[in-house]
Amino acid sequence: MTRPDGRAADELRPVKLTRGWSMHPEGSVLVEFGNTRVLCTASVTEGVPRWRKGTGLGWVTSEYAMLPRATTTRSDRESVKGKIGGRTHEISRLIGRSLRACIELKALGENSIVIDCDVLQADGGTRTAAITGSYVALHDAVTWLANKGALAKKQTVESTLHRSVAAVSVGVIKGEARLDLCYDEDVSAEVDMNIVCTGTGDFVEVQGTGEDGVFDRKQLNQLLDLGVAGCSQLADLQREVLGLPSLSPSSLLAKFGGDVRR
Amino acid sequence: MTRPDGRAADELRPVKLTRGWSMHPEGSVLVEFGNTRVLCTASVTEGVPRWRKGTGLGWVTSEYAMLPRATTTRSDRESVKGKIGGRTHEISRLIGRSLRACIELKALGENSIVIDCDVLQADGGTRTAAITGSYVALHDAVTWLANKGALAKKQTVESTLHRSVAAVSVGVIKGEARLDLCYDEDVSAEVDMNIVCTGTGDFVEVQGTGEDGVFDRKQLNQLLDLGVAGCSQLADLQREVLGLPSLSPSSLLAKFGGDVRR
Amino acid sequence: MTRPDGRAADELRPVKLTRGWSMHPEGSVLVEFGNTRVLCTASVTEGVPRWRKGTGLGWVTSEYAMLPRATTTRSDRESVKGKIGGRTHEISRLIGRSLRACIELKALGENSIVIDCDVLQADGGTRTAAITGSYVALHDAVTWLANKGALAKKQTVESTLHRSVAAVSVGVIKGEARLDLCYDEDVSAEVDMNIVCTGTGDFVEVQGTGEDGVFDRKQLNQLLDLGVAGCSQLADLQREVLGLPSLSPSSLLAKFGGDVRR
Amino acid sequence: MTRPDGRAADELRPVKLTRGWSMHPEGSVLVEFGNTRVLCTASVTEGVPRWRKGTGLGWVTSEYAMLPRATTTRSDRESVKGKIGGRTHEISRLIGRSLRACIELKALGENSIVIDCDVLQADGGTRTAAITGSYVALHDAVTWLANKGALAKKQTVESTLHRSVAAVSVGVIKGEARLDLCYDEDVSAEVDMNIVCTGTGDFVEVQGTGEDGVFDRKQLNQLLDLGVAGCSQLADLQREVLGLPSLSPSSLLAKFGGDVRR
Amino acid sequence: MTRPDGRAADELRPVKLTRGWSMHPEGSVLVEFGNTRVLCTASVTEGVPRWRKGTGLGWVTSEYAMLPRATTTRSDRESVKGKIGGRTHEISRLIGRSLRACIELKALGENSIVIDCDVLQADGGTRTAAITGSYVALHDAVTWLANKGALAKKQTVESTLHRSVAAVSVGVIKGEARLDLCYDEDVSAEVDMNIVCTGTGDFVEVQGTGEDGVFDRKQLNQLLDLGVAGCSQLADLQREVLGLPSLSPSSLLAKFGGDVRR
Amino acid sequence: MTRPDGRAADELRPVKLTRGWSMHPEGSVLVEFGNTRVLCTASVTEGVPRWRKGTGLGWVTSEYAMLPRATTTRSDRESVKGKIGGRTHEISRLIGRSLRACIELKALGENSIVIDCDVLQADGGTRTAAITGSYVALHDAVTWLANKGALAKKQTVESTLHRSVAAVSVGVIKGEARLDLCYDEDVSAEVDMNIVCTGTGDFVEVQGTGEDGVFDRKQLNQLLDLGVAGCSQLADLQREVLGLPSLSPSSLLAKFGGDVRR
Repeated sequence: MTRPDGRAADELRPVKLTRGWSMHPEGSVLVEFGNTRVLCTASVTEGVPRWRKGTGLGWVTSEYAMLPRATTTRSDRESVKGKIGGRTHEISRLIGRSLRACIELKALGENSIVIDCDVLQADGGTRTAAITGSYVALHDAVTWLANKGALAKKQTVESTLHRSVAAVSVGVIKGEARLDLCYDEDVSAEVDMNIVCTGTGDFVEVQGTGEDGVFDRKQLNQLLDLGVAGCSQLADLQREVLGLPSLSPSSLLAKFGGDVRR
Repeated sequence: MTRPDGRAADELRPVKLTRGWSMHPEGSVLVEFGNTRVLCTASVTEGVPRWRKGTGLGWVTSEYAMLPRATTTRSDRESVKGKIGGRTHEISRLIGRSLRACIELKALGENSIVIDCDVLQADGGTRTAAITGSYVALHDAVTWLANKGALAKKQTVESTLHRSVAAVSVGVIKGEARLDLCYDEDVSAEVDMNIVCTGTGDFVEVQGTGEDGVFDRKQLNQLLDLGVAGCSQLADLQREVLGLPSLSPSSLLAKFGGDVRR
Repeated sequence: MTRPDGRAADELRPVKLTRGWSMHPEGSVLVEFGNTRVLCTASVTEGVPRWRKGTGLGWVTSEYAMLPRATTTRSDRESVKGKIGGRTHEISRLIGRSLRACIELKALGENSIVIDCDVLQADGGTRTAAITGSYVALHDAVTWLANKGALAKKQTVESTLHRSVAAVSVGVIKGEARLDLCYDEDVSAEVDMNIVCTGTGDFVEVQGTGEDGVFDRKQLNQLLDLGVAGCSQLADLQREVLGLPSLSPSSLLAKFGGDVRR
Repeated sequence: MTRPDGRAADELRPVKLTRGWSMHPEGSVLVEFGNTRVLCTASVTEGVPRWRKGTGLGWVTSEYAMLPRATTTRSDRESVKGKIGGRTHEISRLIGRSLRACIELKALGENSIVIDCDVLQADGGTRTAAITGSYVALHDAVTWLANKGALAKKQTVESTLHRSVAAVSVGVIKGEARLDLCYDEDVSAEVDMNIVCTGTGDFVEVQGTGEDGVFDRKQLNQLLDLGVAGCSQLADLQREVLGLPSLSPSSLLAKFGGDVRR
Repeated sequence: MTRPDGRAADELRPVKLTRGWSMHPEGSVLVEFGNTRVLCTASVTEGVPRWRKGTGLGWVTSEYAMLPRATTTRSDRESVKGKIGGRTHEISRLIGRSLRACIELKALGENSIVIDCDVLQADGGTRTAAITGSYVALHDAVTWLANKGALAKKQTVESTLHRSVAAVSVGVIKGEARLDLCYDEDVSAEVDMNIVCTGTGDFVEVQGTGEDGVFDRKQLNQLLDLGVAGCSQLADLQREVLGLPSLSPSSLLAKFGGDVRR
Repeated sequence: MTRPDGRAADELRPVKLTRGWSMHPEGSVLVEFGNTRVLCTASVTEGVPRWRKGTGLGWVTSEYAMLPRATTTRSDRESVKGKIGGRTHEISRLIGRSLRACIELKALGENSIVIDCDVLQADGGTRTAAITGSYVALHDAVTWLANKGALAKKQTVESTLHRSVAAVSVGVIKGEARLDLCYDEDVSAEVDMNIVCTGTGDFVEVQGTGEDGVFDRKQLNQLLDLGVAGCSQLADLQREVLGLPSLSPSSLLAKFGGDVRR
């Protein structure tokens, strides 16, 4: 079977992480998974929400949104409708949980970081691209805090961001398990799954749905295998883009064309 | 290690499904997983939403909510706040997807069924109890339609509800995998997972989160094993309560004390 | 003329007050007036709203709501609509005023009690059932505060809740004055009135409406007579359920089957 | 005891009904009860809401609001807060019910009338002034429809508006029953009651509240007596202003200074 | 060409400023530009919003709204719709900016003034009437503060309100530039412009729109000439009404019939 | 005096118009005025809003918004707040009016075009950049309609978009009139003005505000001169980018580096 863009079933789309895309935020990354483009910004505020004051702990949260015409047909703005839809809520919460899994909130000191993920163009996998790009933006924001001496005592970027996190979608299309679905694959998938992994291959979040039917343990295992491998490639790319030594023997950067503009 | 209520790690809480708890809805079930109590009602409307008219397809959707003092401390009403929170949205969508996975919308004819799941008392596992109870309420509503002759031509209750669906939570507490967490376990779990299965053991939805840390493949497999077994017991109980022949050799009804009031 | 359920014109429906229906709240009562079922919970918070701080006065307020399928046809959730309807507002305010009439806010100390009245099943008289049940839930919450030593100095449950309050609906159907209307009577009533009385027969609130026409002084007097007598029966039942000595010679408990579960 | 403005306990404030205060509405009345000033406009729309189409019945509804600085201290606009408060809802509903009690919706034909009552200045009794003024505005709007030949077949203004309606507040201050409370009396009243009567002395609505305490049957009767007498004076004034023959021997117009500008 | 009301192209409608129209506010003016009637109230609060505390600066803001039937056809209430429309926002902001341009916020001390402009009847030019009337209401409120000794040290009414401000609409109808458009002119204007000037003829705000087409520099200059002249007449009238010596040789009061009630 | 970026007082920032920046919309332009970056998309829908059906007229409207961290400090999302702010409303309306001034709605046929302007990065002049970029996106959308044969009979792109429109900000800083203010200039400007012109130098909209003080006729004239000249340069650039013959002798493209990616 051939995929719409000729990829192998276990092949990621070209991935590009552009650091410093925006001038104002403490961290900002334009992440591209093929035609999917998400702007991830990390905004640091000194201080934490009221309910957290005096705990010595920091706070990380996330908000996801789509531009109205990021999609094939225009959707109404949530600001105009006056309320946030269920899908938006669900994805914002997923991104927030995933990023909090890789940060030591004690090490952050009483600082807050808001991660905004705005989808500029959508072609499937926006939430997984958002998580992958946000980790890099978060890394830049934590580095900014470290350079200002604003982390908790004796803490470094490494002790604060003690894990990396990346995510990818997997799915079953006409019985075949595939990695990193584009929109056309996503809408016709029988099973749809999002895998969020750390750089060392542990799971942070696993969400699988039988969109049109159900799935058995064997299919689940295939999807998990694909997803873990995809996340591992993304983790290497994140390290490359951040200028950190690779965790895997082969550099994937050349292949996916990550670009460091800053 | 001992669980707060003395259960074995792979043991469900006492489960009770009371059909016909309410007088007005076409289907209504009070489901209890231990102290967790959810009222599931299925409301039939003839006709479908405008965007679906003329397709010959029916529609099933769900709304989940908690009474303000279903929990240890009172939470503000979403109607008073004027908006629905992310958690509510997320769970409503999960229930809706899970129920649509077991119904043939073509067989339903152009009829709509809204499943309302209102948590009267919460002690962990409200969303999984809601799915498990809602399936039974949905079954009663489809039967009501069949009795009225309102299903599509040549369709029966069996051809319309071609699968059953049940759900249970699993989690890792202090390294031990456990089935059907109560609230005290839920808040201290390192990993939290919700498993939605059909009566024949296929997956409808799998959602696992490293609440406080991450999890590896081995832990994931343990949790899946526990969850599938739990769902199988719940499926048997659903059949018993509905007066359908059991799919498994041993009847579980005596054990869990299901009650058929109607 | 015969009533739908065969009652005499001056007869209450079977009334049942189940204390301790919920495990979390400081006071909770499931009140049933025939098929009408309302869950009344009293939630205590230490402290008062900001505008009341330092006054030494406590605060009691109430919120009323209906489950979407408590009624014959399903109504949309107010949380989904994003706003509270006029009827809900009106009833919440009536319940709050009625309860504040029977409590000494000075004696309460700077504590707040929120009374939530959620209609699980509606068959007429939901607001009067709510007031009648809420008084008992409030009594349990005040007792809880007294047991904790949290009332103002030298205050007791009796000095704090210095009156009891109960309510009943009355109406004119085809010219006949009737007590405690069920839904079918309510929709066809020419005059509809809600009477809120103390245990000693004084009025707390009187609200009469010519739903379909008008009413004269004679009819008003008949309705007041009926309502006062009904409230007196409810007050006796409340005392019985709370284990307080009856104020009237004959015990009404046997007749109405009140049930003390806690 | 002396009232703040020297009136007798059974005396209305000077009442003024100015017809045609606004140029656009089909009926408009500026009603003044002492310093309380409410602009009542009646807006006719041909056609009825969708749920009423084809019934042959008309529709009358009402919306009440206060300008932010109609009161001693400024209150926030409900449009800015994004929601309507409970008090506003309650009063809008009361006005709507009271006006529908005096109109034959069948005679109105499929026409809608919205009554807007905007309080320009508040000094107690705004809801009763609103009802009293709105009746006159409604009369003008029905006359406008009659002149256009838009009422149902063979219907006249008289057969359409088959009753008149007026309202007044009464209350108990330091044990004394008083008619038509101004703001200073209203806030210190032990009992507060609003009486809505037809021009022939029947009740449309009776709402009494023990604001600070309770009330007995004797007090209730005193208040009803006062209120009925007050409404009767208001009804005469309405007829005078509308140029209709008086129903009572003595003209009250001179006393209260009603003004017909149109 | 003749204007609907027979005015010359450079002639204002009869303008009337009634001070003290409301009893509660610190300043209140009913302003009439022909049939347009706006109630402007100035409400003083001691203290400033939180973000301004400790700066020693005061705050002035404005809210504009229309009664639902101020216009030819009834429009829905923004409070009922639950949100404020773009036009309302735009005008409220314009009024606020215009008034802040004439007040020394340092001189005001830490006091806040909210200007509410409620359109009771609309016939074109409501925003310019609102600005013109609000200045007078603001003057009364500042005087009230001065009389209480609540302005900053050594400040007077004159040093606080160091400029006056007035506004008028101008437009091009069938090629002719006209001053102070009524509604019928406004809807058929090719160009529509609002001019806000100080009493000494400087511009505070200029907003011109080619409603139906575009305009050239020559037309713009004609409109500016007309607008400046109109504002100058309004400024004189404001001074007359406030009892201040006229800045221009001829008194315009007689012509426009300004009325000082207080 | 030197400007922050060394420009002359009458010099635009580098302007870049990238057509086809997004893959889904019928027209899309990333417009950059220096560091200000706005994504303008034109979304075509066949059909018009209900109130316009059957008129034969098309419809063009616009929505403007900012990403939360487009600015120096993060602002809350309007979707999260549940309402749109006044500034957003004001700018959306300005863009919509400006674009409708250059299109013949009759020629468009019963088609709707929504222009979304999302500010990705803000450094002053976002609304003027949005108008300038939106015109180009609108041109591409109209061309798309023309290519589909969906314009009204005998209509062409030229007859439909019969004018071009561009906009620029001007202001007075320390007494000096300057063209195209960046953010640092904008916040310190005494006068701030937005000029919207057609390609032939007529005015579509003129909005000037004395932010900190007032302005006289001479200053107004200087600002208008600057603004008209700036718009003329932008109009030439728009034509260049659209591949249309220049209206002015000298090409400005080289200077401002416009880029045609599609």
